[in-house]
Amino acid sequence: MPVTRPEVGGPIQHGGNLAQARASFPDAPEPWIDLSTGINPHSYPHSPLPGNAFARLPEPDLAERLKVLAAEAYGAPSQAHVAPGPGTQILLPILAGLQAGWGGGKAAILSPTYAEHARAARLAGLEVTETEDMERLADGRLAVVVNPNNPTGRIVRRSELLALAAVMRAKNGLLVVDEAFMDVSEAESVADAVDAGGLVVLRSFGKFYGMAGLRLGFAISHPETIAKIESRLGPWAVSGPALHVAGEALADAGWQKAMRERLKAEATRLDALLAEAGIPVAGGTSLFRFIRGPRAQAIFQHLGERGIITRRFAERPEDLRIGLPAAEDWPRVEEALRTI
Amino acid sequence: MPVTRPEVGGPIQHGGNLAQARASFPDAPEPWIDLSTGINPHSYPHSPLPGNAFARLPEPDLAERLKVLAAEAYGAPSQAHVAPGPGTQILLPILAGLQAGWGGGKAAILSPTYAEHARAARLAGLEVTETEDMERLADGRLAVVVNPNNPTGRIVRRSELLALAAVMRAKNGLLVVDEAFMDVSEAESVADAVDAGGLVVLRSFGKFYGMAGLRLGFAISHPETIAKIESRLGPWAVSGPALHVAGEALADAGWQKAMRERLKAEATRLDALLAEAGIPVAGGTSLFRFIRGPRAQAIFQHLGERGIITRRFAERPEDLRIGLPAAEDWPRVEEALRTI
Repeated sequence: MPVTRPEVGGPIQHGGNLAQARASFPDAPEPWIDLSTGINPHSYPHSPLPGNAFARLPEPDLAERLKVLAAEAYGAPSQAHVAPGPGTQILLPILAGLQAGWGGGKAAILSPTYAEHARAARLAGLEVTETEDMERLADGRLAVVVNPNNPTGRIVRRSELLALAAVMRAKNGLLVVDEAFMDVSEAESVADAVDAGGLVVLRSFGKFYGMAGLRLGFAISHPETIAKIESRLGPWAVSGPALHVAGEALADAGWQKAMRERLKAEATRLDALLAEAGIPVAGGTSLFRFIRGPRAQAIFQHLGERGIITRRFAERPEDLRIGLPAAEDWPRVEEALRTI
Repeated sequence: MPVTRPEVGGPIQHGGNLAQARASFPDAPEPWIDLSTGINPHSYPHSPLPGNAFARLPEPDLAERLKVLAAEAYGAPSQAHVAPGPGTQILLPILAGLQAGWGGGKAAILSPTYAEHARAARLAGLEVTETEDMERLADGRLAVVVNPNNPTGRIVRRSELLALAAVMRAKNGLLVVDEAFMDVSEAESVADAVDAGGLVVLRSFGKFYGMAGLRLGFAISHPETIAKIESRLGPWAVSGPALHVAGEALADAGWQKAMRERLKAEATRLDALLAEAGIPVAGGTSLFRFIRGPRAQAIFQHLGERGIITRRFAERPEDLRIGLPAAEDWPRVEEALRTI
């Protein structure tokens, strides 16, 4: 299949699009196994939603309670350092907009990484540099590091991030550390260090808790920045169901610990299958494995024909990201990898 | 109780806050009857959510289908004229931001009305005029009319709105017509007229369908403006549950028709109770009644002490908005109004 580039300024292609998978592989067996995202296949087992979770406007005091729980779960200094939103995605243009102000300026993004950061910065009017060099991140008003990185799994040390935040702060810049996959990483969060200023940490609820359809994410930052973000989100930014589910999940340290161990074991199992198939793993996290090499497109094609969709990248044809299968899907994944 | 003004730039007080009601009336009987919003107490009876509505990222093709249904339900020219978002609230700063661009400018808002429009425009850097005079709306880059108006119920004629949209279009301005309560109004929507440009129509899903906790709203406009809005919302703006519920509700013309009639009858019933209590109704829609006069604070207090919360307005102490009770709550509302 041809590798196509997204239109300049147009929407970016992402994982999780089964309609597109069906169109690309019309003869593949159903049901599709979706390994194209980094979302936990084991969703958090929340209690039934209260009857009015959909009907009523989300209660402000429940939203406040969610901030308290998120601050504890993510290690933020306090609930005043937390802004919940309907997914972290919608926060990216808001953050870029805060730094663009009325006069443009530059942004630098540690790359390759989640492509929406660059799109959001350009949308805000910032001139974007995508760089592999940490040294160049301090060049602009906005610096972005995804840690651990998606899709490569690259980890940036806490000390480096804090040094960069200090540089950004000194010039009224902002470092955004997107910790979307931090829940399953050996990387160190910097969520506890936001009070000094110049730093925003993003946390995604849907990935680790297997609840991406719920749309919930958090910005963690100095209270002044939090106030700016919340004023742009306005009231009722988070849905009633999200308040209920996250209200349980973020407080469930037992589930979190057991799930981290389970995901680590499953990632190891996937690595073993890939190794048997002669496919070296170049990186990743416990929620996805990253492959880089000349066979990437052939692996994508082979799995796709067998109803297993993985994530390739239009602009980097040697890269492939493979998520974890659900419990019942391992046999088909094993069979597909055995015949590669 | 003292009438307090919200802090300049701080959050605006809204209805639907039961914790606040409890704090104001600690001796009131439970459960609280919440008449402080304009949300339909009869929620849409959707089918059970599919098992993966929370877990998976919302599928792009379901989001496309939602646009088709919304275009039909609201009378937009096509699905390319529709942008769904997680509530209309979050769209207000986006729309104001489109008009503020990099250089400030003026906004004019037909007032008194839903206070978040003025807040969003100021946040975007626009200088806001709140006016009762339609003639002054064309003064700026952004004009806002809530139609029918919340809380007064005032209706602006379609011909006037289309004339204003033409004036705004001619100077690259934008008219926002917030039709949050249009589903239950005799007012005429202008959603079919957006293709000429200079016009954005907002539709709220949660109010008429009694699903405010779901967070779903729509912008209807020229496709170029829709593209700008969608680029700021980014992918997965709407949750999996919202795609499911709205996918059924927007196509259910039978429920919509029956519910319009039911709400109209219930609003008439509430008017009769208010008339018996000697309280003249000054306006409203079938989802809320509007009272203006020197007794407003006393009525708020009397009902509050009986566990019935209504919506008063810090800046206009003679105004009061009363929503419709749920079926089981009418006896307590009747009793409370009889003893006023």
